[in-house]
Amino acid sequence: MRYEPTDQPVMTFTTGPVESYHEVMHGLGSRIVYDFDMSFLKTYERVSEKLRPLVKSETMPVILHGEAVLGLESAAVSLIGSDDVVLNLVSGVYAKAYEPWLARNGAEIIEIRVPYDDIIDPAAVAKALRDRPDITVVVICHHDTPCGTINPIEEIGRIVAEHGAFYVVDAASSFGAMQADAESCKADVFLTGPHKVLGCPPALSIVGVSERAWAKMEANLLAPRGSILSILDWRDAWRSDRLFPFSPSVAEINGLDAAIDRHNREGNERVHARHALTAKACREGVKAMGLKLWPLDEKFAAPTVTAVRIPEGVDDARVRQEIRLRYGLLISPGRSETMGKLWRIGHMGIVAQPINMLAAVVALGHTLNAHGYRCDVAAGAAAVMATIDAD
Amino acid sequence: MRYEPTDQPVMTFTTGPVESYHEVMHGLGSRIVYDFDMSFLKTYERVSEKLRPLVKSETMPVILHGEAVLGLESAAVSLIGSDDVVLNLVSGVYAKAYEPWLARNGAEIIEIRVPYDDIIDPAAVAKALRDRPDITVVVICHHDTPCGTINPIEEIGRIVAEHGAFYVVDAASSFGAMQADAESCKADVFLTGPHKVLGCPPALSIVGVSERAWAKMEANLLAPRGSILSILDWRDAWRSDRLFPFSPSVAEINGLDAAIDRHNREGNERVHARHALTAKACREGVKAMGLKLWPLDEKFAAPTVTAVRIPEGVDDARVRQEIRLRYGLLISPGRSETMGKLWRIGHMGIVAQPINMLAAVVALGHTLNAHGYRCDVAAGAAAVMATIDAD
Amino acid sequence: MRYEPTDQPVMTFTTGPVESYHEVMHGLGSRIVYDFDMSFLKTYERVSEKLRPLVKSETMPVILHGEAVLGLESAAVSLIGSDDVVLNLVSGVYAKAYEPWLARNGAEIIEIRVPYDDIIDPAAVAKALRDRPDITVVVICHHDTPCGTINPIEEIGRIVAEHGAFYVVDAASSFGAMQADAESCKADVFLTGPHKVLGCPPALSIVGVSERAWAKMEANLLAPRGSILSILDWRDAWRSDRLFPFSPSVAEINGLDAAIDRHNREGNERVHARHALTAKACREGVKAMGLKLWPLDEKFAAPTVTAVRIPEGVDDARVRQEIRLRYGLLISPGRSETMGKLWRIGHMGIVAQPINMLAAVVALGHTLNAHGYRCDVAAGAAAVMATIDAD
Amino acid sequence: MRYEPTDQPVMTFTTGPVESYHEVMHGLGSRIVYDFDMSFLKTYERVSEKLRPLVKSETMPVILHGEAVLGLESAAVSLIGSDDVVLNLVSGVYAKAYEPWLARNGAEIIEIRVPYDDIIDPAAVAKALRDRPDITVVVICHHDTPCGTINPIEEIGRIVAEHGAFYVVDAASSFGAMQADAESCKADVFLTGPHKVLGCPPALSIVGVSERAWAKMEANLLAPRGSILSILDWRDAWRSDRLFPFSPSVAEINGLDAAIDRHNREGNERVHARHALTAKACREGVKAMGLKLWPLDEKFAAPTVTAVRIPEGVDDARVRQEIRLRYGLLISPGRSETMGKLWRIGHMGIVAQPINMLAAVVALGHTLNAHGYRCDVAAGAAAVMATIDAD
Repeated sequence: MRYEPTDQPVMTFTTGPVESYHEVMHGLGSRIVYDFDMSFLKTYERVSEKLRPLVKSETMPVILHGEAVLGLESAAVSLIGSDDVVLNLVSGVYAKAYEPWLARNGAEIIEIRVPYDDIIDPAAVAKALRDRPDITVVVICHHDTPCGTINPIEEIGRIVAEHGAFYVVDAASSFGAMQADAESCKADVFLTGPHKVLGCPPALSIVGVSERAWAKMEANLLAPRGSILSILDWRDAWRSDRLFPFSPSVAEINGLDAAIDRHNREGNERVHARHALTAKACREGVKAMGLKLWPLDEKFAAPTVTAVRIPEGVDDARVRQEIRLRYGLLISPGRSETMGKLWRIGHMGIVAQPINMLAAVVALGHTLNAHGYRCDVAAGAAAVMATIDAD
Repeated sequence: MRYEPTDQPVMTFTTGPVESYHEVMHGLGSRIVYDFDMSFLKTYERVSEKLRPLVKSETMPVILHGEAVLGLESAAVSLIGSDDVVLNLVSGVYAKAYEPWLARNGAEIIEIRVPYDDIIDPAAVAKALRDRPDITVVVICHHDTPCGTINPIEEIGRIVAEHGAFYVVDAASSFGAMQADAESCKADVFLTGPHKVLGCPPALSIVGVSERAWAKMEANLLAPRGSILSILDWRDAWRSDRLFPFSPSVAEINGLDAAIDRHNREGNERVHARHALTAKACREGVKAMGLKLWPLDEKFAAPTVTAVRIPEGVDDARVRQEIRLRYGLLISPGRSETMGKLWRIGHMGIVAQPINMLAAVVALGHTLNAHGYRCDVAAGAAAVMATIDAD
Repeated sequence: MRYEPTDQPVMTFTTGPVESYHEVMHGLGSRIVYDFDMSFLKTYERVSEKLRPLVKSETMPVILHGEAVLGLESAAVSLIGSDDVVLNLVSGVYAKAYEPWLARNGAEIIEIRVPYDDIIDPAAVAKALRDRPDITVVVICHHDTPCGTINPIEEIGRIVAEHGAFYVVDAASSFGAMQADAESCKADVFLTGPHKVLGCPPALSIVGVSERAWAKMEANLLAPRGSILSILDWRDAWRSDRLFPFSPSVAEINGLDAAIDRHNREGNERVHARHALTAKACREGVKAMGLKLWPLDEKFAAPTVTAVRIPEGVDDARVRQEIRLRYGLLISPGRSETMGKLWRIGHMGIVAQPINMLAAVVALGHTLNAHGYRCDVAAGAAAVMATIDAD
Repeated sequence: MRYEPTDQPVMTFTTGPVESYHEVMHGLGSRIVYDFDMSFLKTYERVSEKLRPLVKSETMPVILHGEAVLGLESAAVSLIGSDDVVLNLVSGVYAKAYEPWLARNGAEIIEIRVPYDDIIDPAAVAKALRDRPDITVVVICHHDTPCGTINPIEEIGRIVAEHGAFYVVDAASSFGAMQADAESCKADVFLTGPHKVLGCPPALSIVGVSERAWAKMEANLLAPRGSILSILDWRDAWRSDRLFPFSPSVAEINGLDAAIDRHNREGNERVHARHALTAKACREGVKAMGLKLWPLDEKFAAPTVTAVRIPEGVDDARVRQEIRLRYGLLISPGRSETMGKLWRIGHMGIVAQPINMLAAVVALGHTLNAHGYRCDVAAGAAAVMATIDAD
C-alpha cells in the first residue's frame, strides 16, 4: 500500500468534517480579539447579520458554540416541555438519534418511520396530525446524512403550518448546497452548521428561531439556563450592546465570517449548481458501473452525499481501507443502522468539483473489481465526464 | 480619540480571550482532516498524550469541545449526585458562579466565603471538614480571574486528601504560567483550558480526572450521557481505536497541538519565569504610581493578571474607554461583584513580555492623571524598567 | 539578560524589513496559482491597477521581482546611457550608493553633496542645472533611510522639469506614509517597494515610469534585455494578455494584493496621520529626554524613521544589544557613514502606532542612563503621552 | 463551460509555479523578522545548512533572491570570462536559452545540439572535448522542462571531470524528485530552486559552487559585484556573523525552511518514490490511450513532467482551454520550439500523488475524443490504476 495510515489523505470525500476552503483557513488563523472588545462585538453582530439572508429565520440566527449536535440538543430541550406531544419523522439514523433529546423533558414521542432508503411521505404526516390533533411539535431531518436522502421539508412544512404545530428542521448537511432555509419550509426552529457546505471545521451550530418558538422556550420551565445547553442565554448575544454568556469561539467566528464571504462571492446559485452537478456526476458514474444508489428513488439523493449500496459479499471496511491506503482517498462508511450497508461519497464544500468525482468513482469501482465484484469502471468514468460535458 | 471602536486594539492586556501566538494561528489555519480518518485519530491521541505531562492527571486528560465553562459544568453535573455534600471554597466571582452547577443534581452546598480580595485559608477548610465529616466533594478555583488572586490549592489539597473527599480544582487561567497540575494539588478533577496561557482561542476544555472520580461519575445515575454535557462519553475518545461521540473541533485541536509544541519548545520553566517577571513588572509599576493592588496581600497576586483597585471617584468605564480609544490598549474591567472595583491588566500568553507592561502601566497612570487622580507615572515607568533590569 | 539572541524580538522598531500586517501574512500564505493561468494573469493585472492610484505614474507601474535595490539598479542601467550627464543629489548613504549604478554605462556623474544630517537645497539644484545645462538626468533619494531625512522632492521636481532633465526619485521608505508619488514630484522614474509602509516583506520593487523615460530606455542600447536587470522586459507584463519574461514571485504578489487592500481599507490619509503622529510622539519623547535628533532641522525628519544622535562616549552596539536582549526591542543602527553616529527607531507599517513609541523611547533613555549618559526618561515618557493626547 | 477564466483551477498539473504544500504556505505567512536580527541571521544560516545535504555542494549552497533564472544568469556571467570556451549541451529550450548569458562576457560558445525529444549522448560530449581541448566550461540542463526529458548528468559529469572543464548543471525541476546533486554529477556549479519539487513559490535560486569555481569567479574581472547579479556578494551571506548585501526575501526563506523540513519529514526516498510512481502512472495512462510520449525513449522521461505529443490536426490551445474551463484542470503547453508540439502534465510537489493522474489522463483523452482524435480513455484510466496497484 502506498500510504501509511498516518499520512494525510490526498482527497477527502467524506460527509464531514470536510476540508476547509483556503479562505476559511485564513479566517481561522486570524488574530484573536478579546470577545468583549467593541471591534469583536461588531464582528459578531456582522457575522450574525450576514447569516440571516441565508438562514432566513424570523429572528436573528443564533450561533451556539459547539458543533451541530449542540444546536439540536439545545433546541430540543429548550423548546419541548413535559406536556408536548412530538411527532418525530424518522427516515434515517440522525432523526432516530434525536429521540432522547426530544424526550428528555418528558414529552410523548410519536414516530413516523420509513425504511432508511426512503423518505417521509407528506400525506403520512398529514394523516398523523389528523389522528393526533394534540401533536405540538414536528421534527424532521432534511438530509439524513447517514442515508444520503433528502426529505420534502417544504411540503411537510405547509402541512405542519396548517396544523399549527411547531416545526423543527435539521438542515446541517444540505444548507448552502440547495434551497434550505427557515422561510421556505416555514420552520420554527431551523438548525444548521457551517461545517458542511460552507467549509468550516465543526465547532459551531446555527439556529434560526421563530418569534413564537422563542416565546415557547421562554415559557418552558425546563429550558436550560446558565448552561452550555441554553439557547435562551444566547438569544441576544448577536447584539453588539449585549454581553456573551461565556466566551464565544473567536477563531471559529472568524472562520465563519470568511466562509460566508467566500460563499457570497461565489454566489448562492453558483454554489448550488456546483454541488448539483458534482452529485449528478457521481451518481451517473456509480450507476454506470453497475452499482446501486442507496436511495430508493434517485430523486431522493442529496446534492452533498452520494450513498451507494454495498454489494453482497463485499467487505465494507477492507474496500474503504484499500481506497484510503492505496489511492489516498477517503470515503465515509454508513453509520449505525446503515453501517455495512452503504458507502457515502461526500462532495460538499471545497471538494464539490465535478472532476473530483472521477477519482472517487473509478477508485471505488476499481477496488470492487479487485474484490471480485464486477464493475464497469470505463463506463463509470465515461458517465462522469459525459455528465460534466452536458452541463 | 485616535481609534474607532471598530479598529482592532494595538495591544491586548485582557484576561482572555488573549491574542494567539503565531504558531497557534498557523495551527488553527491548518488543513482540516476528517475526524475518523486514522491520521486525525492519531493526531488526537498524540495531542492528548502531549497534554498529560502538563496536566499530570492520573488518567489521560479529556478534551471537551466547548470553552472552559463546558468543562466546569460537565464535570460538576457528572461527578456530583443528589447525595453529595459539597464544600465550595469561594474567594471570588467564578467560584460563586459554580454553585448552580454544583447544586443541579440536588446536592447540599456548604460554602466557605472570604472577601474577594482575600484567599481561602487552609485552616478554615480543615475546620469545615472536621465540622462536617460528611462532605464528599471540595471545589476550589485556583486563580479566580475576576479578582486576580491565587488560592493555595496544594496545601488545601493535602487537607482534602486526608479527609478523603473528592477535590475539584479549576486552574484555567493559572495553568501553564505557574505550577498548577493535578498531581501537585492531588486533584480528582483538574479543570483547565488552552485559551489562556497556552495562547489558543476559547473553544476547548481540558479535564484531568482521577480513577476514583471516573468511578464516581460512572456510578452517578444523574451524570449526563448522550449529551454535550457528558464527559463520560468522551472518556476514551483520546484512543485512536475509539470513535468520537460527535465531531471534535478539528481546527482547535490543531491549534492546541501547535500551542503545546510551542510551549514545550520555550520550556515550561522559561514560560513560568516570563509570566512571573511580567507580572512583577506590572505590580511594581502600578504600586510605584501610588495605586493599590486589589489582592489584600501581594503574595496572592496571579502571574497572569494584575488586579488594581479603582480609586474613589474615578469613572471605571470612561478610563478604560479612553485607554482603548486614545492608545489602542485593552484592559479588562472587573466582573460581577468586582465590576467597578478593580481593573485587570492581563499578561498571559504572547503579551506576557515584561516590556509590554510599560505601556499598560503608563497608559493607566497617565489616564488617571487626566481624570484628576494623581499618579506618579514617572515612578511607575521607572519601576517597570528596574524590575526588568533586576531579573 | 532575559532573551537569547535566537529568541524573536518582542517589538521591531527597525527601518525594514519590518513586521507584516496580519492581512499581508495571510496574503503571502495563500494558494499558489500557476503564473500563466488566466486567474493569476488577472490577479497580476488587478494588483498593478490598484498600485497605480498610489504611485500616480504616467504609465502603469512595473513590479520587478527583487527587493527595492533591483528597481534602483535596473532603472539606472536601463535609463542612463554613456552620453548622459547625471546629477546625483547626495544627502545620505543610499544616494551615494547609487553612484556605481548611475555610472555603470559610462555616464558622467556630477554630485551635489550635503552633510548627511542636512537635505538638498532646491536652489543648489537650480544653480547646478544652470551651470551644466547638459545635465540629462537628476537623481534623488526622498527618504535617505540611513539618515532619517526627507528631501524636498516636489520643489526640486519643478526645477528639474523646467530644465527638462529626467528625474529619478527613490521613495522606498516614505511611500505610503506621506505624500510621495510620481505625479506630485513630476518624476520620470519613481521607485518604491511594498516592504516598508505597506508592510510586505522585502522581495519586490515598484517602478513608475513616464512615457518619455520609456522612450529613452528603449533607445538605450546599453539597457539590459533578457536579464533580471531588464525593466523593459517587464514593461507590459501587467497586461493579462501578455506573458511574463520569467516566473513572477506569486506569493509576494498575493501579499502585495492584500497589503494594498489593507492600506486602502484604512485609507491613505488615516495611514499618513498614523505615521505622522507616531513619528512626532517618538521625536518629542527623544527630545524631552535630552537626546538630539540627527536631522539638522526637525522639519527634515521622516514620518517612518526617527534618527537619534548617539551621545559622545556611548557604545553604540552595546546599547542596542542590551535593548534587544533585556527588553526584546529592536532598533536599527546607522549604516555606512552614519554607523556609530545615530540610532534609528523605525515606525512604519504595523508598528506605527503612537503608544509603541513609549517602549522605544523609555528603553533607549533608560539604557543610556545605565551607560552613564543622563536621560530624563520620565520627561520622555510624558512627552510621548502628551503628544498622543494632543492629537 | 463550468468555470470562468478568473476562477482558480481545481487542480494544477503545470510545470511550475506549482501549488505549495500547506506547510510551505504557513512558512510564507510567518512573522517577518528584521533580517539583521540575530534570530533571523541564525534562521538563514540554519536554512543554508539544511540545504547542504540535499545540494551536496563542496561549499555551502548560496541562496539568491530571485527565481531560478537569477541563479542561471548570475552564475553564467560570474563564472565565464571573455577567454572561456563554453560547450553548451542543448537538448531543449532552456539549454538554448542560456546562450546569451553564457556569451555575455565574450566567451566562445560551442554547441552540441540534439532534437528536443532526444537527450545528450555522453560519447558526443567526450568527442567534443577531445576535438576542442580548450573548452573550459561545460553547461547542461538536467531536466529541460519544456521537453520533459532528463539528461545523463552523472555520466557526462565523469567525462567533464576527466577533461578538467568546469561543469555547470541546472537541475531546477528535477532536484528533490530524483537523485540530482552536485556531488553525484561532479558539478562545479549546481543550480536549482525550491519552487518545483520542494513546493515553494518562485522567488529564490539555490546555487552550489565548488571551491575552484569560486576561485574562478573571484578571478573573473567581469563577474558582477555590487549588483543583484552578483553571486560573489552573497557567497558568505549564509554565515550569521556576516551581513547581507541587500535585504533577503524573508518570507521566502521562511517558506523554504518549512519546505525543507516537510521534505525531510516525508524522507528523500519516499518523495522520490512518490514522484516516480506518479510519473509512471501518468505515462502508462497516456500511452494506453494511444497517445505518444514526447521523449524519443521513455527512459528519458522526467519524474516531474510528462510531455505528450500533440496529435496532428488538434488545436493545442483549444484543448487546454476546454480542459481548464470545463474540468478546472491546468496542464502546461510547450514553450518556444516545443509550443504546439507537446502538452506537459506536471506532477511535482503537492500534486505528485498517483491518483491525481486519473483526472489528468482522462480529461486529456476525453477532450481529444471530443476534438475528433480517438483516445481509448477507458484503457488510460485502467492503466493509471494498474500502475498504482502494481506499486
